[in-house]
Amino acid sequence: MAGRNHLFIPGPTNLPDAVLNAMHRNMEDHRSPDFPALVQGILADLPGVFGSTAGTAVLFPASGSGIWEAALVNTLAPGARVLVARKGQFSVLWADAAQRLGYRVDTIDVEWGMPTPADQIGEALVRDVAHEIAAVLVVHNETATGVTSDIGAVRRAMDAARHPALLMVDGVSSVGSLECRMDAWGVDAFVTGSQKGLMLPPGLGVLCLSPKAVARVAACPTPRAYFDLRPVLGATTPGFSPYTPAISLLHGMRAALDLLKAEGTAATIARHARLGAATRAAVAAWGLSLCCRVPTAVSNTVTTVMVPDGADARAVIDFAYRRYNLSLGAGLARLAGRAFRIGHLGDLNDLALLAAIAGTEMALRDAGLAVTAGSGVAAAEESIRAALA
Amino acid sequence: MAGRNHLFIPGPTNLPDAVLNAMHRNMEDHRSPDFPALVQGILADLPGVFGSTAGTAVLFPASGSGIWEAALVNTLAPGARVLVARKGQFSVLWADAAQRLGYRVDTIDVEWGMPTPADQIGEALVRDVAHEIAAVLVVHNETATGVTSDIGAVRRAMDAARHPALLMVDGVSSVGSLECRMDAWGVDAFVTGSQKGLMLPPGLGVLCLSPKAVARVAACPTPRAYFDLRPVLGATTPGFSPYTPAISLLHGMRAALDLLKAEGTAATIARHARLGAATRAAVAAWGLSLCCRVPTAVSNTVTTVMVPDGADARAVIDFAYRRYNLSLGAGLARLAGRAFRIGHLGDLNDLALLAAIAGTEMALRDAGLAVTAGSGVAAAEESIRAALA
Amino acid sequence: MAGRNHLFIPGPTNLPDAVLNAMHRNMEDHRSPDFPALVQGILADLPGVFGSTAGTAVLFPASGSGIWEAALVNTLAPGARVLVARKGQFSVLWADAAQRLGYRVDTIDVEWGMPTPADQIGEALVRDVAHEIAAVLVVHNETATGVTSDIGAVRRAMDAARHPALLMVDGVSSVGSLECRMDAWGVDAFVTGSQKGLMLPPGLGVLCLSPKAVARVAACPTPRAYFDLRPVLGATTPGFSPYTPAISLLHGMRAALDLLKAEGTAATIARHARLGAATRAAVAAWGLSLCCRVPTAVSNTVTTVMVPDGADARAVIDFAYRRYNLSLGAGLARLAGRAFRIGHLGDLNDLALLAAIAGTEMALRDAGLAVTAGSGVAAAEESIRAALA
Amino acid sequence: MAGRNHLFIPGPTNLPDAVLNAMHRNMEDHRSPDFPALVQGILADLPGVFGSTAGTAVLFPASGSGIWEAALVNTLAPGARVLVARKGQFSVLWADAAQRLGYRVDTIDVEWGMPTPADQIGEALVRDVAHEIAAVLVVHNETATGVTSDIGAVRRAMDAARHPALLMVDGVSSVGSLECRMDAWGVDAFVTGSQKGLMLPPGLGVLCLSPKAVARVAACPTPRAYFDLRPVLGATTPGFSPYTPAISLLHGMRAALDLLKAEGTAATIARHARLGAATRAAVAAWGLSLCCRVPTAVSNTVTTVMVPDGADARAVIDFAYRRYNLSLGAGLARLAGRAFRIGHLGDLNDLALLAAIAGTEMALRDAGLAVTAGSGVAAAEESIRAALA
Repeated sequence: MAGRNHLFIPGPTNLPDAVLNAMHRNMEDHRSPDFPALVQGILADLPGVFGSTAGTAVLFPASGSGIWEAALVNTLAPGARVLVARKGQFSVLWADAAQRLGYRVDTIDVEWGMPTPADQIGEALVRDVAHEIAAVLVVHNETATGVTSDIGAVRRAMDAARHPALLMVDGVSSVGSLECRMDAWGVDAFVTGSQKGLMLPPGLGVLCLSPKAVARVAACPTPRAYFDLRPVLGATTPGFSPYTPAISLLHGMRAALDLLKAEGTAATIARHARLGAATRAAVAAWGLSLCCRVPTAVSNTVTTVMVPDGADARAVIDFAYRRYNLSLGAGLARLAGRAFRIGHLGDLNDLALLAAIAGTEMALRDAGLAVTAGSGVAAAEESIRAALA
Repeated sequence: MAGRNHLFIPGPTNLPDAVLNAMHRNMEDHRSPDFPALVQGILADLPGVFGSTAGTAVLFPASGSGIWEAALVNTLAPGARVLVARKGQFSVLWADAAQRLGYRVDTIDVEWGMPTPADQIGEALVRDVAHEIAAVLVVHNETATGVTSDIGAVRRAMDAARHPALLMVDGVSSVGSLECRMDAWGVDAFVTGSQKGLMLPPGLGVLCLSPKAVARVAACPTPRAYFDLRPVLGATTPGFSPYTPAISLLHGMRAALDLLKAEGTAATIARHARLGAATRAAVAAWGLSLCCRVPTAVSNTVTTVMVPDGADARAVIDFAYRRYNLSLGAGLARLAGRAFRIGHLGDLNDLALLAAIAGTEMALRDAGLAVTAGSGVAAAEESIRAALA
Repeated sequence: MAGRNHLFIPGPTNLPDAVLNAMHRNMEDHRSPDFPALVQGILADLPGVFGSTAGTAVLFPASGSGIWEAALVNTLAPGARVLVARKGQFSVLWADAAQRLGYRVDTIDVEWGMPTPADQIGEALVRDVAHEIAAVLVVHNETATGVTSDIGAVRRAMDAARHPALLMVDGVSSVGSLECRMDAWGVDAFVTGSQKGLMLPPGLGVLCLSPKAVARVAACPTPRAYFDLRPVLGATTPGFSPYTPAISLLHGMRAALDLLKAEGTAATIARHARLGAATRAAVAAWGLSLCCRVPTAVSNTVTTVMVPDGADARAVIDFAYRRYNLSLGAGLARLAGRAFRIGHLGDLNDLALLAAIAGTEMALRDAGLAVTAGSGVAAAEESIRAALA
Repeated sequence: MAGRNHLFIPGPTNLPDAVLNAMHRNMEDHRSPDFPALVQGILADLPGVFGSTAGTAVLFPASGSGIWEAALVNTLAPGARVLVARKGQFSVLWADAAQRLGYRVDTIDVEWGMPTPADQIGEALVRDVAHEIAAVLVVHNETATGVTSDIGAVRRAMDAARHPALLMVDGVSSVGSLECRMDAWGVDAFVTGSQKGLMLPPGLGVLCLSPKAVARVAACPTPRAYFDLRPVLGATTPGFSPYTPAISLLHGMRAALDLLKAEGTAATIARHARLGAATRAAVAAWGLSLCCRVPTAVSNTVTTVMVPDGADARAVIDFAYRRYNLSLGAGLARLAGRAFRIGHLGDLNDLALLAAIAGTEMALRDAGLAVTAGSGVAAAEESIRAALA
């Protein structure tokens, strides 16, 4: 097929050429005297991406779900109790991982499309007078539903409850794209992967820990080996890793962090806001609805679009892919067939998004939905021009 | 700037990743026993791209304008007379090159926007009873105006005039994208460069010669060195070149020819037809006019769009580039400021074009032209869906 | 510094250009209908690299040490007893990982430089009349000492003891380079990483399981999440992974497997044998001794060279790196300063090795050791020419 | 074949990874407002590589032989007389090109292996009382014989003869590697290509002109088109080119110039001196002789090695290539079969050279020559260590 694939799933995202070029290099000796500088530079810059100056970043050759585990097993004793608000597939999976690791999982379930209910978390913590709950687990941006939660509100609820639980946040589809204020929000363990806002291939997980969380690691009795942070945090050479590091991805990470610096955090956030708003303008012009039920909680990295009853979102995705070489995300789990997702995060600009919107509206029509040609693009163009004015 | 540049000039065109990867390799010994197979395979495949089985292809490390010279100096004696129909910047420049090389140039000038007037060429040849005119030079697809000429008609006019002149054709923006029938059209020297339909970087020129043209080379008395075909055509090892060949580009050429084969000539032509039609549908929806005056001569590789009197096409191009990272072609020479050009050839698909159309209509509006948001994209989408149906 | 680094550590190894090019590509949708074919093809080919037709290969975005954990936690219940022969840093570390994961570790310690003592393993198993030992853990090629163990002998000892323990083998520095006969040796869990014989960057771990091991997974009660094989082995789509797969590395793996196929297993093994023999010939010519104490156990992927008492191997490594851009491996743990290592595995040919030998002998002299210029290279050349004759 | 080819022909040379990465990029609009800065920066830096501050550099998409032509046709009228000292294949070919372009060529022939006879040139100029000789053509480093000529001596001879002829120098295998003092030597046209000391693929030619030569261009009556410098030198935008520039190569050139800057001219020259001396030490140790007859004229970029009577240099080259993946240069023209060449210029370090020397001595022995194993490497190692001490 001529031309490039138009990749608009919510991750992995498009790789900047600078990242690809930085990764196109032979291997090197990771025990050489020159190597630590690379890792140290990355570890120095990473907390900033989470909105932290006090945090400690660590890297693992692993996908983001491995970092869920790393956060838990280094800070929580076997059988500890955790509280998870389940509001989409990824919060469900994190809860599931905690359970499989032997933790006791308290869940608060809300309708998919709703953000994390800070108030219910606060109530649960107030009820936990024995302070058995060791950690609250929240997905910042629920990639399944396109809903961004207010982590600051969760922190305020925890503080109001005067509860000492750790606050653990999954930032897989927010870090690097949306505003993250780790220190201000009092996040203790902030988890992300390489393949979304960091614009890298999958394979490198990042965990940023607060001083409070770091202090838990040494005494945490949970059996662990690969994800054990003790050799990392206790290393005499900063940046040392007990395993062979993912050298290619580290060079890519350096390039990606440099790109983020060059754009500037505020500009990156504004760009994602512009892309998100344009996408939602198109959805409205098509007469479709969002999965997200709360207008203030719409996600600027992924938009989950509901198709009308009787329509099959899988057909839309299939037409987009086969006819137009456009990759859209599927509805997950209970949303399968009922929704499709447009990922608009990472190395994207306005016209790239407009191509995706054009392709989506063509695919919607191909699938038999009553959508006016050009309507989504027109609305998105207006939204973009207004934002750029 | 996040994301990729949207490159819609009429060349150089977008490089397929397969071409870039094929070129990403260390140098090698071009005198090794293994090297000739690469060149020989390319030379065997290239005539097919021109629509020829009888032709002989030769390569030069040079841009396309060097190949104009190669065609002339290897077949025409000093001071020979050539006939050129000037109808746009590139036919003007070819005539100028011939003149600077010392040839006598007869010109037929038509309005820019008109195709080559086969009838006027026929008449000029009929008048040339002494058969002084040694060659007729025609630009197949005039990149400045977006006009494709009927080379078969030129051949028929030459045959009707029973004139023995060589027919030389510039196919820089047609070869690899539009239908080329070198043998059927009786083209004697077909010129192209690497950076358009062949989807390579600039730097490699291609000349395809008919047996009649090849027969002229040995005895042609014009002084020449770099572009001299005698050492090439007379080499005992097929594919031998007297200079160091452009090794990277040759590997890229192999990959590009393989991509063209994989798509199939008919499919490539149809894709460019679809992209051209969609672009023109958008132009019509914007209420703008084409530079091309003859509906049957519209180009499927480049569309030259006139802006209304009082508007400045340079402003459109500037907004497109600075605000949307979209590269459009400028109006050339007498069209400067009055036209802009959308190149839609090479490694492009439908959604990539729709991004460019979206960006163009936004830039038109930014420049103050009365264009309806989404109108061009809507028309282009309809055009594409109809073509794909 | 001009020219390339000469990388002769025992991993990560040099990346073939074909692998780098295969990895130089944008991301894609790993849930697309086209993606599973890539993974399925890799999983179909991987067991062959281990010398298995009956085995099941699984991949994790992780370093090789993660796969140690994956092998253990999917097959052994909490607190199970494992037997490890410790004979170098990597067997020490695997034993340590098992211990940290809560297993009871019985160790047999032999001098570093000795291979795995199959007889002592057999005796230990005979003593274990209650069959409490659930697994025997053996490092096939001990990267620290340059010693290759006879896995077939271990299997024979286990069979002679009629002991049902699983046989787990670390093949990190053997798989893809040395003869591996998983099925014939009755290996139940064969562990490797991407960054050695597989000629990929670090970051992708491979585990090949026997049917007997696969059968243990479902009922294994050990808490686990990231390394849990149940979702992988139970997936309806073969090749499905519950996490985002390491897309770049998978494309690289495809290229690497194709390279291995093109060379052929026997030829790959013979090449490594030639490189190993040449290296040892050089060491002998220098008058230095190997760490390996048993001539039949010398490794063809890594040579650990002892420096005389009073000399510091770190100085040799330092001169090699700073003066000649040659990366040698350091002596590990108790061998620090007493040994250096030459890795000669992966994408290497004879002349590349001779460069490393030349650089090593220059660095030895720079460090004050009495080595004759050219002596090592002369011996290595003779060894290579004899092998090629 | 595993591992990389060892490329030791005298060009094209090995590409640094930084150059390959710089060239791995999509095309762009060469008429954009951002593009000229790239070309201007290159043109500003290039004269320095020739040892000039007064010179004007121009670039052509062409191989080096095209630049021979560009130098001639822009400064010499049709039929002008030029004086060429022929001392190897490349001076022969330049003379031949001048002849084919219609110039009258006076030749001074010296034995291949001798440098340019400055005295004989002086004498010829003194005899030319009518000052008919318009230019003296000298190859700085004769790639066929491995002989470097003293251009300063030629200039002194010209000055002593008070002759106004232009001094044109072919620096194809010297520029970027050997000391070049264009201004001090009074060179009027200094020619090079991209594929040797500039560490780029072939395809970009460079011409550096003195103010005296620049002044000749406008009035020079020689017919020319592609290589016509008038549009380039007269452009209002510095760096403008009338043809589509070789965009990939320009980005590579930027990277290559940055590498040369980072190493520093003196260090680059010293490195080549070290590589040249080590190679010659090896040749002496093998008991073979150089083609170069004058010890002070040995080339530090290419060593041409004579084989004894009765031996066939082609067999050496063949064994080197097929058995060891080592590419050596063949003896050219009258040296065919009697000599082979080791190119040691460009992106090379000491150990890379030692690999080539090891491979050469193995191939010599394979071809039946009486060479002691390791002897060349030993001598080269000693030479290198002495130079680095």
